[in-house]
Amino acid sequence: MRNTILSHRSIRKYKPDSIPEKILEDILRSGIYASTTGNMQLYSMVVSKEVEIRKLLWEVHFKQDMVLQAPVHITFCADFNRFNLWCRLRNAEPGYGNFLSFFTAAIDALLVSQNISLAAEYHGLGICYLGTATYNADRLIEILNLPRQVVPVAAIVMGYSDENPGTTDRLPLEAVLHKEKYRNFTDELIDEIYRLRESSEQTKQLLELNKKETLAQIFTDNRYTKKDNEFFSTKYLEVIRKQGFLEPENLT
Amino acid sequence: MRNTILSHRSIRKYKPDSIPEKILEDILRSGIYASTTGNMQLYSMVVSKEVEIRKLLWEVHFKQDMVLQAPVHITFCADFNRFNLWCRLRNAEPGYGNFLSFFTAAIDALLVSQNISLAAEYHGLGICYLGTATYNADRLIEILNLPRQVVPVAAIVMGYSDENPGTTDRLPLEAVLHKEKYRNFTDELIDEIYRLRESSEQTKQLLELNKKETLAQIFTDNRYTKKDNEFFSTKYLEVIRKQGFLEPENLT
Repeated sequence: MRNTILSHRSIRKYKPDSIPEKILEDILRSGIYASTTGNMQLYSMVVSKEVEIRKLLWEVHFKQDMVLQAPVHITFCADFNRFNLWCRLRNAEPGYGNFLSFFTAAIDALLVSQNISLAAEYHGLGICYLGTATYNADRLIEILNLPRQVVPVAAIVMGYSDENPGTTDRLPLEAVLHKEKYRNFTDELIDEIYRLRESSEQTKQLLELNKKETLAQIFTDNRYTKKDNEFFSTKYLEVIRKQGFLEPENLT
Repeated sequence: MRNTILSHRSIRKYKPDSIPEKILEDILRSGIYASTTGNMQLYSMVVSKEVEIRKLLWEVHFKQDMVLQAPVHITFCADFNRFNLWCRLRNAEPGYGNFLSFFTAAIDALLVSQNISLAAEYHGLGICYLGTATYNADRLIEILNLPRQVVPVAAIVMGYSDENPGTTDRLPLEAVLHKEKYRNFTDELIDEIYRLRESSEQTKQLLELNKKETLAQIFTDNRYTKKDNEFFSTKYLEVIRKQGFLEPENLT
């Protein structure tokens, strides 16, 4: 377990080999053991293997090669649809058309996704999360026929690795750990936390390639810009609303 | 790994024994190996052990005994504060005052929380997620001194178990698994999915205790009511806005 967690790295090149059904089922089953709110299991996972569907998904995910290469694509959704159907069949009136219910279901789905990612890695497979699942959630809803009260919150590709990258560098633990209460960061502490990453060979190459002065500028100006974030925010909130999770009174 | 995942159950009674520092650090370190968006590590974890702070947290979490019993309480936060400080020190202008950025950081924090929960269980500890972290996020912000662009998304307690509950029953895999695309549920399939849970001895006792006709009604009328959900939705959205993640233009 410990080794599986510590040796995680995202895999972005895959062999065409398919995943044996038994192994895939074992991995998917690992998902359902994650904690979920009130044991309601407010999530679903859509496992897509057909090439035609993966081609559509590849477009959703900004045409990243790995989406076509990896034999399995899983979309994790916050899902109140099944729970609502059950309630209505049992003479109970569901009241889940609100943001808290969406977020609660999103938590369920995300814990499940991490169980599945670790179980896949335990079985010798590689995975990569696709951040674009929230960017283009509207398209995922169309392609995967997601009904009301189902919203994609994450997606991963899964398959046998065709590369051997090192583990990703991480900030030192103190960057993310606060004892008892949140401590303020001094400028000196920020410098110290980012020192190793900023002085790496990889960063130097990135700065040259992008003609930027600092690594932070590559994030704010190129990778995660205000303009894109605002565009996709509006779009994702619209999806959440259209899927029935934002009543007007929550937004005033 | 596989056994750790499959034997998960939430622990709600704890021994007073503290967790050895080395083990706790090993568990916390497991968190940082989770995938994060663009390797930005947009999360923080606040580890509270002092009794005075845990008493305040106990009130936040609706005075559940386990919060006082368990020696460790961890609050997982969507966190752009540290990243923003870094950007500003590096002549880069962060554009993360929007919902997408909040949700992206929330994903990071939740994957980390699941790594930590599994690592704790691997070390023989018990954990329990506290859904109340989103309900009373405003109080957590006060108690833990969380700055702008930091929002609690989950909390767990952790410690040595003082009970031996069975693993929680789960719906069959087909309840949450969709192949290629989302399939519709017929009434018959819903009946089948919920049959085992509804016919259990535990359910019969619950129905009698709550004087309800169906298990679903215990969820809609008692545990997760429309009124509560709407109240806490408004409150949580207000927290997200106050912490700087909802610009007015996202909400029109």
